[in-house]
Amino acid sequence: MIALFTDFGLYGPYTGQMKAVLHNLAPGVPVVDLFADAPTVNPRASAYLLAAHAAWFAERTVFLCVVDPGVGGERPVIVVEADRRWYVGPGNGLFEIVRRRAQEPRTYEIDWRPQRLSDTFHGRDVFAPLAALLARGERPPGRRRDDGVDRRPDWPDDLPEIVYIDHYGNAMTGMRAEPLKEAGLSAGGRVFERARTFGDRPAGEAFWYENSNGLAEIAVNRGRADRDLGLAAGMPVAIVS
Amino acid sequence: MIALFTDFGLYGPYTGQMKAVLHNLAPGVPVVDLFADAPTVNPRASAYLLAAHAAWFAERTVFLCVVDPGVGGERPVIVVEADRRWYVGPGNGLFEIVRRRAQEPRTYEIDWRPQRLSDTFHGRDVFAPLAALLARGERPPGRRRDDGVDRRPDWPDDLPEIVYIDHYGNAMTGMRAEPLKEAGLSAGGRVFERARTFGDRPAGEAFWYENSNGLAEIAVNRGRADRDLGLAAGMPVAIVS
Amino acid sequence: MIALFTDFGLYGPYTGQMKAVLHNLAPGVPVVDLFADAPTVNPRASAYLLAAHAAWFAERTVFLCVVDPGVGGERPVIVVEADRRWYVGPGNGLFEIVRRRAQEPRTYEIDWRPQRLSDTFHGRDVFAPLAALLARGERPPGRRRDDGVDRRPDWPDDLPEIVYIDHYGNAMTGMRAEPLKEAGLSAGGRVFERARTFGDRPAGEAFWYENSNGLAEIAVNRGRADRDLGLAAGMPVAIVS
Repeated sequence: MIALFTDFGLYGPYTGQMKAVLHNLAPGVPVVDLFADAPTVNPRASAYLLAAHAAWFAERTVFLCVVDPGVGGERPVIVVEADRRWYVGPGNGLFEIVRRRAQEPRTYEIDWRPQRLSDTFHGRDVFAPLAALLARGERPPGRRRDDGVDRRPDWPDDLPEIVYIDHYGNAMTGMRAEPLKEAGLSAGGRVFERARTFGDRPAGEAFWYENSNGLAEIAVNRGRADRDLGLAAGMPVAIVS
Repeated sequence: MIALFTDFGLYGPYTGQMKAVLHNLAPGVPVVDLFADAPTVNPRASAYLLAAHAAWFAERTVFLCVVDPGVGGERPVIVVEADRRWYVGPGNGLFEIVRRRAQEPRTYEIDWRPQRLSDTFHGRDVFAPLAALLARGERPPGRRRDDGVDRRPDWPDDLPEIVYIDHYGNAMTGMRAEPLKEAGLSAGGRVFERARTFGDRPAGEAFWYENSNGLAEIAVNRGRADRDLGLAAGMPVAIVS
Repeated sequence: MIALFTDFGLYGPYTGQMKAVLHNLAPGVPVVDLFADAPTVNPRASAYLLAAHAAWFAERTVFLCVVDPGVGGERPVIVVEADRRWYVGPGNGLFEIVRRRAQEPRTYEIDWRPQRLSDTFHGRDVFAPLAALLARGERPPGRRRDDGVDRRPDWPDDLPEIVYIDHYGNAMTGMRAEPLKEAGLSAGGRVFERARTFGDRPAGEAFWYENSNGLAEIAVNRGRADRDLGLAAGMPVAIVS
């Protein structure tokens, strides 16, 4: 399976042209849209979102990841192998958190480029052909790069920030819920206690809970955390003991 | 074929993670998005929308339906067999209208739960594995429940309400067009006559017509009924003789 | 492969019901969404967008194209064969630019209609079954029509107009970049110089460049041309020498 993680949107030609490449070069391999609205041109917030969601997928899944403000510039093209899954994308830190949580991750830099290479759509021209090749079971066509070209050692292990507002207005943070135990969280000038799920709180009440991918998420029962609490992607979150 | 009917949206991880389960557990079975924007947390309006659209699909289609404000609470997990199609989802009335229009429908309650069960994403963890199993041709892994646990006998046969605003701003009602014959419809303080199709009316004129799934729908030729007439989901509609 | 080019949107039942037809009638053929937000009820702007993007696809691709304000009226149902690709849709000029740039294109008019034919959803009822048939390798079930029933000879070879605003707020024009060489473009009261790619300009600066499908596109590095420059679909563009 190939899972797409991009900031391309679903409308317009970008996701469709990438899928056309995948179907041509890896026929019969299922392709699913994981995120088409990853934090736009924000590899750091995206890195935490990707790591939390990728862990749920089966081994041998190939993640085709494009959050790439440096397209057309000098950033390397990277393949990461981590916990028996593959990650293809730009070497801008996008795989930093996946790597950090994996056992014996490996980075490859890929020098291969296609004959027809646009300046602005490497998702279609470079990353999708590489993802198809890995999905067919081939090895990454590049060399090991363990000098940290793609690393961001200064990023924290959990990001105390709202990284994504979902379809229901819930605010996903970049922090895993498990280590937080029963701590409170504060964001947008308010403090939120932990709950197990929506039904545990009265309608209209705000709380935080462990979402289905293990992240701490702020929500309002039968409401919207974005609208009702003024929360938005990029806002800081603090732990309140 | 598996058809998805949810209020999950297409963006974010929810629809993608459900499809990942389906491709893993029912390889090769096509999956299509019927509605990803069914009336949010509104099983009643959704029930009329689902019944109208499901009737068009081929026999043996499996409908994976998640409009589930009670997730994490006590509502049962239900499979309905109706007119040789399968419906999987929460027992909150979502299949009431499908059942009522079917010959000899059967309800099954499913007690099976997976080992990894989140509190808030039963679409991925419970309903999708069940839909995959039915799509593979297996029987529902539960017991008959004909005591009406999933029924809503007080709901009308046709819902005099706007249940959905489509991409063009047309207002779908919860009423089948055929029994209305040449009656007028009123909504938002105006009365609409029936037309066959858009081209039968001058530009800018409002009317109602039988849409391609058999529902009465209010539209404006070369306009938008939501913007031009102030119509919105949830507004009442009345029959004018 | 079947590529969808419509103004149906991805939400609601339209794209999903078309895909259900395609999967039923052309099992195993991949289907990708190229545009679900082609210029609404605007076959002229759509024609330039389609021609630019279709050229990238492999031979034998079938384009299922529905931008069809005349549905339910008298416009013919058309299949065009051009440069070994197939185009199915309404005969309203949508394939004018594809034809004009092709070697020996052929138009067929299709009189076939299904037994169940709605008045308003020919995408599902007429065009999708035809696309499936062509994808299976069959010949168009109609007769040659070389009298120009589907042509628009008065349309220009390149359209000096903004035809699409993409997910990042970039403004695609209907003009191919290559013949423009180093000319400037003006739109919305401003003049834009050509650049190779985003990184060649400082943050916040506006420019035009050749996008990944060969069209001239106006963009702002790390900004949005729609918001920052007030550009919108339908606005005229002029060449400044």
